[in-house]
Amino acid sequence: MKIIIVGGVAGGMSTAARLRRLDEHAEVVIYERDPYVSFANCGLPYHISGDIADRNKLFVVTPKDLERTLALQVHVQHEVTGIDRSRKVVRVFDHASGRTFEDHYDKLVLAPGANPVRPPLPGVNHPRIHALRNISDMDAIKAVVDQGAFSAVVVGGGYIGLEMAEALRRRGVRVDLVERSDQLMQNLDPEMSRDLAYHMESHGVNVHLGTNVREFRDADGRVEVVLAGGAHPVADLVVLAVGVQPENELAKMAGLTIGTRGGIVVDQHMRTSDPDIYAVGDAVEVRDAATGEMAVIPLAGLANRQGRVAADHIAGRPSAFQAVQGTSVIKVFDMTAGGTGASEKALRRAHMSYTKIYIHPNGHAGYYPGTHPMHLKLLFTPQEGRLLGAQVVGFDGVDKRIDVLATALRAGMTVYDLEDLELAYAPPYGAAKDPVNMAGFVAANALRGDVELWYPEEYTDLPDDALLIDMRSPREYAGWHIPKAINIPMGELRQHIADLGDHKDRPIYLYCLSGFRSYLGTRVLRQYGFQNVNNLSGGLKTFIAFHRNPLTSAQPAVPFEPHAEDRTAESERIPVT
Amino acid sequence: MKIIIVGGVAGGMSTAARLRRLDEHAEVVIYERDPYVSFANCGLPYHISGDIADRNKLFVVTPKDLERTLALQVHVQHEVTGIDRSRKVVRVFDHASGRTFEDHYDKLVLAPGANPVRPPLPGVNHPRIHALRNISDMDAIKAVVDQGAFSAVVVGGGYIGLEMAEALRRRGVRVDLVERSDQLMQNLDPEMSRDLAYHMESHGVNVHLGTNVREFRDADGRVEVVLAGGAHPVADLVVLAVGVQPENELAKMAGLTIGTRGGIVVDQHMRTSDPDIYAVGDAVEVRDAATGEMAVIPLAGLANRQGRVAADHIAGRPSAFQAVQGTSVIKVFDMTAGGTGASEKALRRAHMSYTKIYIHPNGHAGYYPGTHPMHLKLLFTPQEGRLLGAQVVGFDGVDKRIDVLATALRAGMTVYDLEDLELAYAPPYGAAKDPVNMAGFVAANALRGDVELWYPEEYTDLPDDALLIDMRSPREYAGWHIPKAINIPMGELRQHIADLGDHKDRPIYLYCLSGFRSYLGTRVLRQYGFQNVNNLSGGLKTFIAFHRNPLTSAQPAVPFEPHAEDRTAESERIPVT
Repeated sequence: MKIIIVGGVAGGMSTAARLRRLDEHAEVVIYERDPYVSFANCGLPYHISGDIADRNKLFVVTPKDLERTLALQVHVQHEVTGIDRSRKVVRVFDHASGRTFEDHYDKLVLAPGANPVRPPLPGVNHPRIHALRNISDMDAIKAVVDQGAFSAVVVGGGYIGLEMAEALRRRGVRVDLVERSDQLMQNLDPEMSRDLAYHMESHGVNVHLGTNVREFRDADGRVEVVLAGGAHPVADLVVLAVGVQPENELAKMAGLTIGTRGGIVVDQHMRTSDPDIYAVGDAVEVRDAATGEMAVIPLAGLANRQGRVAADHIAGRPSAFQAVQGTSVIKVFDMTAGGTGASEKALRRAHMSYTKIYIHPNGHAGYYPGTHPMHLKLLFTPQEGRLLGAQVVGFDGVDKRIDVLATALRAGMTVYDLEDLELAYAPPYGAAKDPVNMAGFVAANALRGDVELWYPEEYTDLPDDALLIDMRSPREYAGWHIPKAINIPMGELRQHIADLGDHKDRPIYLYCLSGFRSYLGTRVLRQYGFQNVNNLSGGLKTFIAFHRNPLTSAQPAVPFEPHAEDRTAESERIPVT
Repeated sequence: MKIIIVGGVAGGMSTAARLRRLDEHAEVVIYERDPYVSFANCGLPYHISGDIADRNKLFVVTPKDLERTLALQVHVQHEVTGIDRSRKVVRVFDHASGRTFEDHYDKLVLAPGANPVRPPLPGVNHPRIHALRNISDMDAIKAVVDQGAFSAVVVGGGYIGLEMAEALRRRGVRVDLVERSDQLMQNLDPEMSRDLAYHMESHGVNVHLGTNVREFRDADGRVEVVLAGGAHPVADLVVLAVGVQPENELAKMAGLTIGTRGGIVVDQHMRTSDPDIYAVGDAVEVRDAATGEMAVIPLAGLANRQGRVAADHIAGRPSAFQAVQGTSVIKVFDMTAGGTGASEKALRRAHMSYTKIYIHPNGHAGYYPGTHPMHLKLLFTPQEGRLLGAQVVGFDGVDKRIDVLATALRAGMTVYDLEDLELAYAPPYGAAKDPVNMAGFVAANALRGDVELWYPEEYTDLPDDALLIDMRSPREYAGWHIPKAINIPMGELRQHIADLGDHKDRPIYLYCLSGFRSYLGTRVLRQYGFQNVNNLSGGLKTFIAFHRNPLTSAQPAVPFEPHAEDRTAESERIPVT
């Protein structure tokens, strides 16, 4: 059997390597348009930054390795330009020799990847404007930086945009980051991405949210980037990172079915509409596990897994690719952010019902140095409490909690299961009650009816007779509080029960810094017969993430940092069970 | 209702805090023998080391906080000395006033913890010999170090022993660590703990494995520790860390049922044999989830969870405590080690059948700086591949993989599920194929029959006609190889098929550095008709962990580190799917 694979990076090379292990006697031919196969795609920004000093480290294996060890026939700079499905041949153009030839396949695997979107803006073809897809792009960008670039504009606030903004800052370049929507990282909900923007600003990136690029103009060989807001930074380098589109040309020409998102349509075995043609990686559409919607998700892990499934099926094994959770993570300077499953935005779009909670636990035991509070958001079904999605943003231990929650979600766990998870604890790594357990406690408390939650987005619609109570200390209250809130510190609540007695039926809205003291307050008031007591989920930390103005405004609406001492306010340190 | 709680640290205080939230009107009284409640037990070594410079950080909350916020009555230096179950009263001795009094309970919760074992050795009561259980112990040890201790002997190679050895080394103290058995960390299998011992040695700890203490002698106020091997280090300080025993005196005197392990016997709601008396924390026996055996496991996370269950049940809720996985982690200088579920030792003891695999993946993408190979061992049922246990030892990302595997194990996942887990990947945090996925691949390959594995412990029993083939490069082979192995590099295997043709029925044992090249070799040979091909699980890295002599011998039997360049041998870098 002869298998031809178009594209030799993550998906294509995974298919090839797996195929060889399953079938020593198959003929496996790989055509790769670019000069490199199996390179470390996700490492490109880190060579530009200097983190990966040795460029050779990006080349996982060479064609010679693959020939020698896996007996693969790898042809680089060979572009497949057409497929004749009736004759089962591909047409190949050899960039080196200029020759075109045909090659016959029994099974064909398309792994062409995705192309950076190039928005049709005036001046977009200026030579200093680059996307970052492959080694050549990386080399070109790095050359400009090495020559002493002073300033750069990065267009797009997703993975590549953020990683490139960091890389350029680390090289001492002035960076403007321009993002059309009002938030970075579209896979996160807006309130969860808020701190990422501030963190980038703190590292000297000028973040322009809610800002379109109008045009690019030449400025003596540099690029003037005209922004909708009126700014027009001039840059030595522009990095376009506004997303990718599946490379579907070849598939389209061959008459294979293309989905509504522009990706190649495949079945669970990665077969296209032609049973002798498979497709894997960034070019295919996958099903979102939570919402059931089709999506194009360019992640290396998925491409590898799909390659394995395609190879298995070609070799006669029934492996199937499952729907996608979209687990992902990004490092942005010192922060880590990511998630798994559906976002709140996605659940709304899909008209799915959900409940959510926010918590802000430390990455590890607060008394052991080097930890910071993280933002953790959990989404789950309102009845059974089955996990739908999770997002985590912070510093230490964020990637760990994303992976634990991804595993729990895959297992179909509920928030009650999270309460009981037995995770590893030593002071440098976690807490006796891990953040994941804490998320379970808080969510399960809500589902069991032990507490009613309210959310920052409801603030402007609170009932007229609402009694808003800030349960922090007088000093914290004096520093800043939500307008209209009165102050009853948790430690004094029991003394005020009598005064509050007239308000037993009045809606009461409690809050504190992170939601814990006000949870205690909720429990006390309810047991004293107050009927309508609500606790602000995530406390002021989440409230601020919602209501602080975007960076484009001159002045934040609420202070970014609560009073310094509040972070360790004694009364937040009560053991939570 | 009045609830009396004996002991105010992890388990007791969790019970109290949860009780208050469930029942605002309950009277909750806590008697704590020591001067402190709710202190950070697990942080004690880190104050001695100086990592936690501020002693006050160890006090999570004060009795005043608890009174003010949770309306708990906390009495420190109050020791409960007896229980009269018929009258439902406890007898309390107030260490401060010298007064004894009785107090009535409706429900009683015992959370006395566990006591360090003090072996009955001659001289064990020397004033320079300390255990580390509470704040006073910590203060005493730290005082000796602060006064300029030159040398210390730590007896016991478990959590406390290792953490104390590190703490003392960080303070510049010369440390001898003495462990009776032939390995550190009994919850790990011996081959997994081997690198921990070498790592401690590399940080200047003199590790004495398989060594008993015979006696302690006074040496001008210092302590001479006479070891079975003949050494007799003289120390300014001895730390006894040979384990703990459940503090069961009070329960025993009251006639409550004590288990075979010496712990208080409780039901799933944490009730003792007296339905009005609960017990939680290090003093109780729990059921091991994998083996079904009863055990006493002193872990803060379990104590907290048990406290929550006891409080729930007292308040009329049906919460139940599950069997224990024993998930745990320890930091030892730069290394991290831990596990979840059953060890191989435990499975053998319980006569349970299992299969195992070893892998050595990097903590994150190899091309991104700061990563190291870890040792990962997975135990699973031989038929369905259901997870039974996992151990991970290494540097970066170890704690994360322990928690992911703990979650997967709790969910009842199989090794096939691990193959498909969708974990978060970015170069600083993981790999497109995460170590957990890799473990799934390797284990599933074995279960599916794609590869037959052999193990280092079988080496001395290989059949006489075995053909042992080292599949590494000639340079690696020349550096060191398993005695009797011949060398056929993977890249040249196909050329040797003809020569090997005479041996189609002969048992062939392959190996390489980590097991990957020889896995490829296995696949090739089997497809060329070789009937009996076996791949060394974990490769030389695991082999060395088994066969390198313990530290007590003068000369290692095999070199600790394979040839420096082998670690990044190109041919190990082929994408694995």
